[in-house]
Amino acid sequence: MKPLPSTSRGRRTRAAIVSVAADLMHRRGLAAPSMDDVLAASGTGKSQLYHYFDGKQDLTVAVLQHQFERVMAGQPSLSDPTCDDLHRWREEVLEAHCAHGMETCPLGAFVGQATDDPVVQKTLSELFERWQDAIADLVARALRTGRVRPGVDPADAGCALLTAVQGGTMLSHLRGDAQPLARALDAVVKGLSAPAA
Amino acid sequence: MKPLPSTSRGRRTRAAIVSVAADLMHRRGLAAPSMDDVLAASGTGKSQLYHYFDGKQDLTVAVLQHQFERVMAGQPSLSDPTCDDLHRWREEVLEAHCAHGMETCPLGAFVGQATDDPVVQKTLSELFERWQDAIADLVARALRTGRVRPGVDPADAGCALLTAVQGGTMLSHLRGDAQPLARALDAVVKGLSAPAA
Repeated sequence: MKPLPSTSRGRRTRAAIVSVAADLMHRRGLAAPSMDDVLAASGTGKSQLYHYFDGKQDLTVAVLQHQFERVMAGQPSLSDPTCDDLHRWREEVLEAHCAHGMETCPLGAFVGQATDDPVVQKTLSELFERWQDAIADLVARALRTGRVRPGVDPADAGCALLTAVQGGTMLSHLRGDAQPLARALDAVVKGLSAPAA
Repeated sequence: MKPLPSTSRGRRTRAAIVSVAADLMHRRGLAAPSMDDVLAASGTGKSQLYHYFDGKQDLTVAVLQHQFERVMAGQPSLSDPTCDDLHRWREEVLEAHCAHGMETCPLGAFVGQATDDPVVQKTLSELFERWQDAIADLVARALRTGRVRPGVDPADAGCALLTAVQGGTMLSHLRGDAQPLARALDAVVKGLSAPAA
């Protein structure tokens, strides 16, 4: 992977290309858009595109990282070391899903897509691990302040909550209705929460 | 949609075509395989293929129904009116997932795939509804026999369990490890189960 551009203008140009590529790949699949499709859609010159990216693999990895950053930006509770509130996170997840027209998950949409590239597969796996770890950290904070019932394993809970986000987002997208995502999150969050005093 | 063939030989031929098409669509996406791809992969004659299916839409609907039947066959607890055991169903889901090499869900893999065909979308939605209703019926039976704690809403629980299957299957596929599916199911099933007497 090439190093990030050193100028802010270079970084803006690179980010604009990644954003266009992310949109194409989210709609049509990781494998479908060619570098030429990205060229056409982004209006960048060929030499500029290849100045920032070695090729499709390099661009795809950048797209996955971009999608991960978008997900994390929509769930600020996960990066806030003072937040111990699973219900706040639940609201963030639902709001982000509705704000984006109940589209499929920016990262989850790529799971299972025919890609034989091990670098791309590894990147996707690692980003899901980081997401799950961030949820587990939130659960661990809630456990320390007593908002989650004692005995909960944060790693188990992080996995169960991430699967609820994935399955819920998928079915909400299918139905055009946020209810499955809300129900999926509630079922897991309720099971983790400490009984009201 | 054309009526099912009247002879058992006709039904076998039709089923073989659907099975080949299902495999192609599961691997490459609903939209990707053309009728000619299905012709080539199934070794049927063109007149035979169009004798059973009007076209791609008709074949796609048959594929979705085939995938649904495959899912239900792997979860016999759902069609067994005497079964009230969520844990037995959980085992069936995990076994089917492992038996098929932790592939993506036969139906879930198609959610969010670019298809502008409202008939296909409606079929997919309806099959998910039927699956969710069957899980809700199992929960209702478990509620009547006291294996699920009083106050559980079977419709809510059916939705939460189906999203756990979807999200869990997705992450288990990504990692090549059934643990996310097991954790996802456990988190919801535990929350529903009546406390041990």
